[in-house]
Amino acid sequence: MSAPVEAFPDRLARLRSDLLRNGLDAALVTHRPNVRYLSGFTGSSGMLVVLGEETWLLTDFRYEEQASQEVGEAVEVVLARDGLPATLEKRLGGRLEVRKVGFEAEHVTVRDRRELGERCGSVVWEDLPPTVERLRAVKEPSELERIESAVRIAEQAFEDLLSVIREGMSERDLAAELDYRLALRGSDGAPFDTIALSGERTALPHGQPSTRRLCEGDLLLLDFGATRDGYCSDITRTVALGRARPWQRQVHAQVLGAQSAALEAIRPDRPAADVDRAAREHLEAAGLGDRFGHSVGHGIGLEVHEGPRLYRASKETLAAGNVVTVEPGVYLPGRGGVRIEEDVAVAADGARILTTSGSALREL
Amino acid sequence: MSAPVEAFPDRLARLRSDLLRNGLDAALVTHRPNVRYLSGFTGSSGMLVVLGEETWLLTDFRYEEQASQEVGEAVEVVLARDGLPATLEKRLGGRLEVRKVGFEAEHVTVRDRRELGERCGSVVWEDLPPTVERLRAVKEPSELERIESAVRIAEQAFEDLLSVIREGMSERDLAAELDYRLALRGSDGAPFDTIALSGERTALPHGQPSTRRLCEGDLLLLDFGATRDGYCSDITRTVALGRARPWQRQVHAQVLGAQSAALEAIRPDRPAADVDRAAREHLEAAGLGDRFGHSVGHGIGLEVHEGPRLYRASKETLAAGNVVTVEPGVYLPGRGGVRIEEDVAVAADGARILTTSGSALREL
Repeated sequence: MSAPVEAFPDRLARLRSDLLRNGLDAALVTHRPNVRYLSGFTGSSGMLVVLGEETWLLTDFRYEEQASQEVGEAVEVVLARDGLPATLEKRLGGRLEVRKVGFEAEHVTVRDRRELGERCGSVVWEDLPPTVERLRAVKEPSELERIESAVRIAEQAFEDLLSVIREGMSERDLAAELDYRLALRGSDGAPFDTIALSGERTALPHGQPSTRRLCEGDLLLLDFGATRDGYCSDITRTVALGRARPWQRQVHAQVLGAQSAALEAIRPDRPAADVDRAAREHLEAAGLGDRFGHSVGHGIGLEVHEGPRLYRASKETLAAGNVVTVEPGVYLPGRGGVRIEEDVAVAADGARILTTSGSALREL
Repeated sequence: MSAPVEAFPDRLARLRSDLLRNGLDAALVTHRPNVRYLSGFTGSSGMLVVLGEETWLLTDFRYEEQASQEVGEAVEVVLARDGLPATLEKRLGGRLEVRKVGFEAEHVTVRDRRELGERCGSVVWEDLPPTVERLRAVKEPSELERIESAVRIAEQAFEDLLSVIREGMSERDLAAELDYRLALRGSDGAPFDTIALSGERTALPHGQPSTRRLCEGDLLLLDFGATRDGYCSDITRTVALGRARPWQRQVHAQVLGAQSAALEAIRPDRPAADVDRAAREHLEAAGLGDRFGHSVGHGIGLEVHEGPRLYRASKETLAAGNVVTVEPGVYLPGRGGVRIEEDVAVAADGARILTTSGSALREL
């Protein structure tokens, strides 16, 4: 599904002022989420060129019509008949004033960079400042709405799933059933491969669904998300199949406690590292510090992992408009694990939880 | 699902002899399908270093155990405690004989290449010859078996789907139903986003499933695939909802004719371009040449698009062991389109079709 017709003059203006500040004459944007963020274009083949006064979207014949519908009037759609790099060469050839061009060094391959160098011999290529990534980390209201839609879809699909979970199903079937319900509820696609683990396999923080069959007494860990108009959700729920054992309740309660501590640390202008530390200190106090081996969360938006990153050594500062996951976990090898993940907007007065809180341990 | 424990001494030996021939002391392989092909490792974080006598797989703590299970004895698993590049730096630091190292310029980003340069100051980085891609284009029997499994899964899922197709369903629901059945039949994951189009939208060669609802008299075009132990299938079927109209039958027959012509052009040692030309000439003779805007096919294997590529200007030559798609199409804007795609192994005596042929136009 393509997003509605939109132009993003403010976003382009912010990029232009950063180009000026960095002595760049233009930006070449090729990373898809960034192209989409700046222009609205959703196709797989596109180069966005942002000059002082003009913006070009180079694309191929497959996307010519779609591009014209999506990008609005601020962006000129250029049909790249001989491939995108050759078209860029021709277009830039006539622009002697364009000398320094910023490109995305973390997304462009060495081979593509080489071709740019050969084709646009008079251009000096420099690293683009991370303007777009920084803008993307602070969501506008229309972006927040889309993330909330993606959260709702994922939560509805999860509720739909609960009624079909049965002993004897495999983890893979469980993932298939959830993916199916995500699609039926309107997800535009899975932002990542759904994780469905059971029993002692819930202790694998990065496990993949296996043929293991669900048994009475198992913990089930589901990590899943939806996409809506390009924006992602990312949720984890851990439930018990049958009546929960005391140790399962205890671990679940500790993880919830860690999550509450992390949520309380969320506030504009606070260091992102504080959120991670709050969860970690809670678990350390419970003697479970060494059972929480990953970071506490990450930004979500057009990508399922973006800024700000909530980890111990993060140098970032939270800002109103950030949307992040908060997902502490405890993993006991050979027994099982619990992870609980909410999606959270950073608001002026603290954390606004977008997900329906997974507070009580559900028993199926 | 991880592949069974395997080592690939022959593949590594072929790479080593190409390194020698190109004056390289080592290869740094980071493209996931290539890492998997050479070592068996299926995780998302890995650097494979192939030296004259040793092979190292650098990975992080998440994959340490999995890597040891997957790579067999020929490969040493190295736990990268401070990140992969830092570990590479330390390891290579003690190897003064390793001067020239090949890397994958079409897969490594400028930023990662820069870090390699900074960390491994004494290394001269050169382009790796395309040995692995060439080896991968010619399938071994065990690879062919996996592709055949992926084909079977996809065909079973398609048959399962036919009984649930109803007027009034949306294209998106149709895609969701097919994806669900692919997963239940045992696909390890979708090798690409399923395409499900109906009515006049079947004329969009790269359309995405929309909310359009299926009507009696529609053509339905489904392009889908499965993955099994890393190997892909890729199939397209076009069917009629209700009794097919005469023009639908005619177009379907012309596309089938083009496909037969293409299949007949498949034989070891023939130019890949011949396969494309055979299909194109058939459609040109029928006055439909300008309605077939894409190439006739591509190799499939660990990636859904790999060598050999079957297009007009291809310089490649077919070889026994290639596995390719053959997928001519005719697209009539405003009316509809037909694409029929088979998966085909190149055998000594010509094309061996792996898919159940989509020869008759099915009416649902």
